[in-house]
Amino acid sequence: MSSGTSRYESPFGAPEGAVPPRLVVVGSIAYDSIETPHGKRERVLGGAACYFSWIASFYTRVGLSGVIGRDFELELLSPFRERGIDLSGVQSDTENDSFFWRGRYEGDMNSAQTLETRLNALGVYEPTLPAHYRKAPFVFLANTHPAVQNAVLDQLDEGAFSCCDSMNFWIENEPDELRRVLERVDGFFCNDAEARSLAGTTNLIHAGRKLLELGLKFAVVKKGEHGALLFHREGVFGIPAFPTKDVKDPTGAGDSFAGGFMGALAAAGEAGAEQLRAALFEGTVMASFTVEGFGLERLFALDEGSVAERRRQLRDFLPKAD
Amino acid sequence: MSSGTSRYESPFGAPEGAVPPRLVVVGSIAYDSIETPHGKRERVLGGAACYFSWIASFYTRVGLSGVIGRDFELELLSPFRERGIDLSGVQSDTENDSFFWRGRYEGDMNSAQTLETRLNALGVYEPTLPAHYRKAPFVFLANTHPAVQNAVLDQLDEGAFSCCDSMNFWIENEPDELRRVLERVDGFFCNDAEARSLAGTTNLIHAGRKLLELGLKFAVVKKGEHGALLFHREGVFGIPAFPTKDVKDPTGAGDSFAGGFMGALAAAGEAGAEQLRAALFEGTVMASFTVEGFGLERLFALDEGSVAERRRQLRDFLPKAD
Repeated sequence: MSSGTSRYESPFGAPEGAVPPRLVVVGSIAYDSIETPHGKRERVLGGAACYFSWIASFYTRVGLSGVIGRDFELELLSPFRERGIDLSGVQSDTENDSFFWRGRYEGDMNSAQTLETRLNALGVYEPTLPAHYRKAPFVFLANTHPAVQNAVLDQLDEGAFSCCDSMNFWIENEPDELRRVLERVDGFFCNDAEARSLAGTTNLIHAGRKLLELGLKFAVVKKGEHGALLFHREGVFGIPAFPTKDVKDPTGAGDSFAGGFMGALAAAGEAGAEQLRAALFEGTVMASFTVEGFGLERLFALDEGSVAERRRQLRDFLPKAD
Repeated sequence: MSSGTSRYESPFGAPEGAVPPRLVVVGSIAYDSIETPHGKRERVLGGAACYFSWIASFYTRVGLSGVIGRDFELELLSPFRERGIDLSGVQSDTENDSFFWRGRYEGDMNSAQTLETRLNALGVYEPTLPAHYRKAPFVFLANTHPAVQNAVLDQLDEGAFSCCDSMNFWIENEPDELRRVLERVDGFFCNDAEARSLAGTTNLIHAGRKLLELGLKFAVVKKGEHGALLFHREGVFGIPAFPTKDVKDPTGAGDSFAGGFMGALAAAGEAGAEQLRAALFEGTVMASFTVEGFGLERLFALDEGSVAERRRQLRDFLPKAD
């Protein structure tokens, strides 16, 4: 905050009437530099909130909240606006550059090697949600400092169904603050290593059940190429990943999974066992597209027809229920 | 061979009429000493052929072929005989002890640490199939030296649908002999590391497809707690592992999986895409029991009712197809 006036600007206005989104995502908007065995890209659009909101917009009315830096090219978000994603929650930091991440994937590409992280604007940002976002019935807090996640939770209407992601860094360095987040949200997304670490047990099924004891309605454990598990109060669901032949870049797959999952829940309007099971399927469908291209490349070309066809292919891949 | 007479005896006679089994398994019969975080057992019955034949007997008429040593307590196989498993292919080596394996599982128990292997009788054994085994329509060659697998294939009727397992040791040390096996059999079972190693590629979907190029009708890639993939000529199927809460001992899970899979195929009498998909489900059901006890403990107590209930539980765990 410099000399009493906010250094933040809101470059995008609210849509007419400022109708509350069905689903709000709060998370990073980034420049990513990515290298995989299939090629490299310099400073392409990335960040959890971008993957999530793009995917979720296939299901419901989405509002995006996040910070961009003074170096950010606003036209990168034009496709989001054209898809009807509410960008009034995007704030521009006039003093810092955008969050930047450089990473590399090797071998089986199951985990990224971070080569460089410059938090920049993200490191000092506390989101302020536009008034109409606070009435959204579904909210997703992408990975960030758990204190920031708690500050966003403070802004929400009481009835909001809220879910969050996190990462090993916060599990190790901010366990108490993260625990307070997990006690407040309804659902949690993490990967298998994070689930084991948080629950303090090597058996993933035990780990998932222990997470529920924090008060969560569900916990999704993402396992990359091995699919995902969903623990809820009545049981467990499991799904293998779609068998993508040519994984070009796994960046954003987890956030796309969450976008499909939460988008499906928001569209259903409830989160009972059957809606959660359907959401697991949708998350798997959507993540399978993300890895087919670098950054958001494949997603920008995605249409309803391709999604319907992929749903059919995933059904064919799964064991028949009878 | 000592002084012109075979040192092998056949302690079990053929069943009346020597009716050919629907499914023959050729593989190890062992004494296993196992240690896991949940306990330990000394010199319990083990070996791929024991797990496989016990499980497969829930589906079809099974014939077991394998060698036991002079130290072997024959009554260990009484339960097999009582279940109607044909033991006339079990040969006793009068000069050597039984195959012995000592292993330990730690942490997530995804892979065994071999502490001791004494091949004993298994190291010098070449199976001779009883005449009525050679007419079996389905045959499974459990992991052993690929030259032995080839020698068994030589004994089979031409129309037999044959499948095999192998291990990294043979992939590395007998690649040519193993390749000759893979060019002759219809189906192949391996784990994910073996698939990657055999195909020379890190992407499992690529690896599975490359295995088919050897002429296989299908390849199953077993991924332990992450389930299994099935590659066949029309596509790929995937299934997550059953979410077992208390894995006591993973020994034999892969062989039980194969037993359920091949048992289902043998019962169906054909191996088209739909039968393979159903077989993948059955393998997953059956492997889930094996890990619930040490050695064959849980399997000896298994009944049709528990299997039916587990099928229902696995269906509930999987994503709905629609």
